[in-house]
Amino acid sequence: MLVSGGLDSAVTLAVAKQDGHDCLAVTFDYGQRHRVELACAARVVAAAGVMEHRTVIIDASALAGSALTGGGAVPHGRSDAVIGEGIPATYVPARNLVFLSLALAIAETAGARAIYIGANAVDYSGYPDCRGVFLESFERTANLATQAGVEGEPCVIHAPLLDLPKADIIQLGHGLGVDFELTSSCYDPGPSGTACGTCDSCIIRAAGFKAAGVLG
Amino acid sequence: MLVSGGLDSAVTLAVAKQDGHDCLAVTFDYGQRHRVELACAARVVAAAGVMEHRTVIIDASALAGSALTGGGAVPHGRSDAVIGEGIPATYVPARNLVFLSLALAIAETAGARAIYIGANAVDYSGYPDCRGVFLESFERTANLATQAGVEGEPCVIHAPLLDLPKADIIQLGHGLGVDFELTSSCYDPGPSGTACGTCDSCIIRAAGFKAAGVLG
Repeated sequence: MLVSGGLDSAVTLAVAKQDGHDCLAVTFDYGQRHRVELACAARVVAAAGVMEHRTVIIDASALAGSALTGGGAVPHGRSDAVIGEGIPATYVPARNLVFLSLALAIAETAGARAIYIGANAVDYSGYPDCRGVFLESFERTANLATQAGVEGEPCVIHAPLLDLPKADIIQLGHGLGVDFELTSSCYDPGPSGTACGTCDSCIIRAAGFKAAGVLG
Repeated sequence: MLVSGGLDSAVTLAVAKQDGHDCLAVTFDYGQRHRVELACAARVVAAAGVMEHRTVIIDASALAGSALTGGGAVPHGRSDAVIGEGIPATYVPARNLVFLSLALAIAETAGARAIYIGANAVDYSGYPDCRGVFLESFERTANLATQAGVEGEPCVIHAPLLDLPKADIIQLGHGLGVDFELTSSCYDPGPSGTACGTCDSCIIRAAGFKAAGVLG
C-alpha cells in the first residue's frame, strides 16, 4: 500500500483495509519539496493501523527535473480550467513507475500479491502515470519481471480512486472514517508545513471539500 | 546506459558508443554483496569515455530477499545443466524493473531517448527480468508513464546482447576493444574483490572465455 500522506492515499488505505487486507504501508522520501507529507503519512498509517510502515529513500538525483523536487517554481493561483490543461510543472519524471517498481520488489519479498495506489485520473489528468492505461501496462510488465508473476500468483494493481472526482473520494473516505486533518495535499507548504492554499493541489482539495459538503 | 561493472554491460557500452551515442552511464548501488563491481564500473566507464557517470543509491531494504543482497547463500560449484534450471537464489526481486524505471526518470530529465541495458536471456535464462518479453513490455509501460513518451519522442530500450551466448558477447567486446580485465562478474568475491571462481557467474564467464578462444 503506497501511502504519501495525502488525501487520496489515506482514502485508498481505508479501502484496502475494508477489502480485508493487512497492509504493509510504504512511503517514499524522494527529496520532495513538500516533505511535511512524510510526517502526515506516519500519522495516517498510525490512525488506520497497519502491519508495518516503511519509509524508502529514493536517491533525489534520479527524480530531479520537476517543480516538486527543486527543478523550477510550483504554479500558484491557476484556475480550474487552466489546471486541467496539459502536463504541469509539478510532473515528476517516471515517479509512479519508480514508486510501483520499488513497491513490487518489497511486495514480492513480503509475499504480498496486491498493491494499492491512490492514483486518480480525474482531477490530475495531466499526469500520464496516473492513468488506467499506464497502470494496466505496469501490471503486465510487473508479472513478466518477477518470479512470483511468472511462477506463482500474479500481482494485482488496485487503484480504487482512479475514476472518482475529488468530491466522491472525500465522501468515500468520510464514510470510512478517514480523518482528513491528518493529511496534507499542498505542493508548496510553508516552513512549518502550513498549506499555501493557492497551488493546484490546494485548489483541487478545497473545491473537493466544498463539492462534497464535508468540512476540510 | 546501465553499467554494472560486469562483462555484459561493458560490451553493451561499447556497442552504444559504436551506435554513435554520447552516453550518460548509470550505476546502481543497491547493497549488493559484490560491491567490487562499483569500482569496476568506474574503471569501465573511464576507459570507454562517457559524457557523465552517476552512481545512484537504491535503498537496500527495497531489494532485499536475494542471495545477492544478504538474503541467503550464493550457490557454488553448480554444473552448467543445473545453472540453467529454474530461477536461482541470486534472483533479486524486480531488480531490472527498478533499475530501468530509475534510468527512465534520469533519461527523461537529461533528454535521452535511448536506454541501453546488457540484459542477456541465454546464459541467465533463469532471471525473468532478462527476457525480451519483459523488456518489450517495459518499453510500452515507460512510454505510457512519461511526458516524453506521451507528448514527445518515445524512449527505446536497447538490449543488443539479449540473444547472444556468452562466447559471442566476449568476441563482440574483444572486437570493440573492451578490456575485460576491468570488469568483474563474481557474485561472491573475497574481501579484496577476488573472484571466487565457483559461483554461477564465474562458471559462465570462464566457459565463455574458453569457448570464445579469448584470454579472460
